[in-house]
Amino acid sequence: MINRSGRFARRAVKVDQALDKIMQHAKRLDDEIVSIDSCIYRRIAKPVYARESMPHFRRSGMDGYAVLSEDAACATPQEPVCLKIIDEVPAGSVSARQVVPGTAIRLMTGAAVPDGADAVVMFEQTEEFQADGQDCVRIKHRTVHGQNITAIGEEIAEGQLLMGAGTRIGPGQVALLASSGYSQIAVIRRPKVGILTTGSELLAPGDPLLPGKVRNSNVFMLAAQIEQYGGAAVRYGTVPDEIEEVDRMIRAALEECDMVLVSGGVSVGDYDVMAEFFTATNGSGLELLFNKIAMRPGSPTTAAAVKDKLVFGLSGNPGACFIGFELLVRPALLAMQGAENPFPSRLRAAMAHDFDKGCPHERYIRGRLSYDANQKLSVCALKQNNSSMLVSIQDANCLIVVPSGSTGAASGQQVDVIPLPYETATYGEEGDVR
Amino acid sequence: MINRSGRFARRAVKVDQALDKIMQHAKRLDDEIVSIDSCIYRRIAKPVYARESMPHFRRSGMDGYAVLSEDAACATPQEPVCLKIIDEVPAGSVSARQVVPGTAIRLMTGAAVPDGADAVVMFEQTEEFQADGQDCVRIKHRTVHGQNITAIGEEIAEGQLLMGAGTRIGPGQVALLASSGYSQIAVIRRPKVGILTTGSELLAPGDPLLPGKVRNSNVFMLAAQIEQYGGAAVRYGTVPDEIEEVDRMIRAALEECDMVLVSGGVSVGDYDVMAEFFTATNGSGLELLFNKIAMRPGSPTTAAAVKDKLVFGLSGNPGACFIGFELLVRPALLAMQGAENPFPSRLRAAMAHDFDKGCPHERYIRGRLSYDANQKLSVCALKQNNSSMLVSIQDANCLIVVPSGSTGAASGQQVDVIPLPYETATYGEEGDVR
Repeated sequence: MINRSGRFARRAVKVDQALDKIMQHAKRLDDEIVSIDSCIYRRIAKPVYARESMPHFRRSGMDGYAVLSEDAACATPQEPVCLKIIDEVPAGSVSARQVVPGTAIRLMTGAAVPDGADAVVMFEQTEEFQADGQDCVRIKHRTVHGQNITAIGEEIAEGQLLMGAGTRIGPGQVALLASSGYSQIAVIRRPKVGILTTGSELLAPGDPLLPGKVRNSNVFMLAAQIEQYGGAAVRYGTVPDEIEEVDRMIRAALEECDMVLVSGGVSVGDYDVMAEFFTATNGSGLELLFNKIAMRPGSPTTAAAVKDKLVFGLSGNPGACFIGFELLVRPALLAMQGAENPFPSRLRAAMAHDFDKGCPHERYIRGRLSYDANQKLSVCALKQNNSSMLVSIQDANCLIVVPSGSTGAASGQQVDVIPLPYETATYGEEGDVR
Repeated sequence: MINRSGRFARRAVKVDQALDKIMQHAKRLDDEIVSIDSCIYRRIAKPVYARESMPHFRRSGMDGYAVLSEDAACATPQEPVCLKIIDEVPAGSVSARQVVPGTAIRLMTGAAVPDGADAVVMFEQTEEFQADGQDCVRIKHRTVHGQNITAIGEEIAEGQLLMGAGTRIGPGQVALLASSGYSQIAVIRRPKVGILTTGSELLAPGDPLLPGKVRNSNVFMLAAQIEQYGGAAVRYGTVPDEIEEVDRMIRAALEECDMVLVSGGVSVGDYDVMAEFFTATNGSGLELLFNKIAMRPGSPTTAAAVKDKLVFGLSGNPGACFIGFELLVRPALLAMQGAENPFPSRLRAAMAHDFDKGCPHERYIRGRLSYDANQKLSVCALKQNNSSMLVSIQDANCLIVVPSGSTGAASGQQVDVIPLPYETATYGEEGDVR
């Protein structure tokens, strides 16, 4: 008989306690310099300040005429004011002339407003004509000081904070960096995350199906989750159910990676080598953080620190593996990239139906958030939510948190939900539950 | 005097009309086959059906003992039922033995339940012992038919639709494809999108700042937006303000790309060569779709079809360029990738403050959605929302739609909002407006 003593003696920690322990070892990674051409989705290493005012000259907001506002303060279509056109300024150029009373300079949107002028009149409010071979313009509307001129520094003042450390670079951020003269940007290195799977039952997607065997899906799912949160996944394949080989492969992966995830083998089964790996603490430099969490699914989820790098033992069950990643690995990955708030936000939503939890433990249920008829958030638990089932993961846009102690949640009851990244950053219309 | 006749004579179409015209030319692209290792964020070319049932054998949901439920129907801790252990099955293996009355087979989570057995009792409800050299187990809890067994096809039936054409592959989808035996997947080709910028005022981010010049930020912003919606950006640099050169470069880009975006030069200024390009229809194969839209910002946004490929003339103003992309280019890009619904969803939210629109036209305002104290959606217009200003783009998680005719929106008024992709698929807490 195989000795399983001690396996049931695991002490469960709460999810928050597990996270606390993990975050103590989720250290921010080093900086690296990248070109602005390849910085999308990276995170800023240190606060970025404006090197220049924006605009750095008085900028015209319109195609039109730069004038002295006093000249045309009372202009109307019936009584237009006539001015001599003394120059033309395309965007990017600067006029050598100065606007003086009775004159105007033609200029384009974005051009520098010439000295002397204090207003720009848009083309649509003007009419050109010639008088004695001189190009002139009729101003047909009242003109006020500062009109259609963006003042120096009006958008951004030199020295102003543009974005804080840890900010993720999206379209708005990269535009701001470019316009502020950053051709290279200090970002935080992407965490390299090794993935190993355990289990002699695992087949590759292309293998012929054999009795009792199943295809390995967790490695693909985890790689996608890692990418989604800014990491770079490194696949180490499936390890045999032998502790020596598991130990060797995990330590080799740790040499190359910043974090290692192992799916499967963490439960109390006879072949659960990860349980064995995590308890073999004899001089191995491994510090077990926890090996049981008071939650369903994923209660045997385990984590350790090995020389200050995190090793996670995630469930082999796809549903539990997915949720273990979202709850525990995601915050660590984001903290390693310097995210200001690495923890998932929580929203409150009304249950759209009764939900029987089926166990007294805190449960995390794959769900789908949408807006009800009153534009309030409502959430459905997806069908096929068992820990061993993966089919509903694709439809989940949130995890529903059903607290411990209760038997479930009644229709209309307010529950916490943790939003998941979804195709578009929104929730479908009412009833949008597949 | 430069001839500008006809430039103000543009006929404005509504946003919906503009979209209609665009979508007629946004044809779905070809399929290509990719490995499951590199299919993340791609879109499925045709519906995917299950080739196999899942599970394809009766699967144990627990580490425990496969038994006949009748044997242990009345077992209790006080009156356990004793069974002989006749075999052990790790996950991935199949027992050659059959469970008959009085016997049990030890098995692991995910293993095939042996013939004869109709229930699995988890280890935690059992106790092993030896009697006359025979390994035995005490079942200490009531056992019912089917307990802890996942039936064949319970999660997925063979032939079942797994995901529709156009579905974007995320963690849940890739896991499902892998577990269903797809090592290669037919996806829709990524649209190649060329980006050109016009304007002699443009500097690169690393150039020294010169009077009257500004740095080109739109090319970086557009490249990021293209990536965000699944396209592959190709940069063609800045074209001079000369119609021949613009024409040559756009046509060269169209040879290599599926769509071309040009930023700048679409307005009524003297150097707005894009306006000229779009009206030069003499035998060039160019079909102008529209060159004015009844909206602010971005009213001169222009689109044409050239040999059934779309060319967009977006505003050179960063705010207008960003919004023009989100409203008009995004749906086209998604349609080219076969997305089931390429149009952005709209939500309703209450304005958190008064907003003076400043013009009678339909306006699209960069905003920030959050939940108010009653968990209803509330939206703030961001400061520095002018079309020429880009600093607020980074903070926007939605566009607020303020309809035409009105003077603005009052605090508490319900408005339409178009969510934007944001760092996490959610909206911040109340007051989370930077």
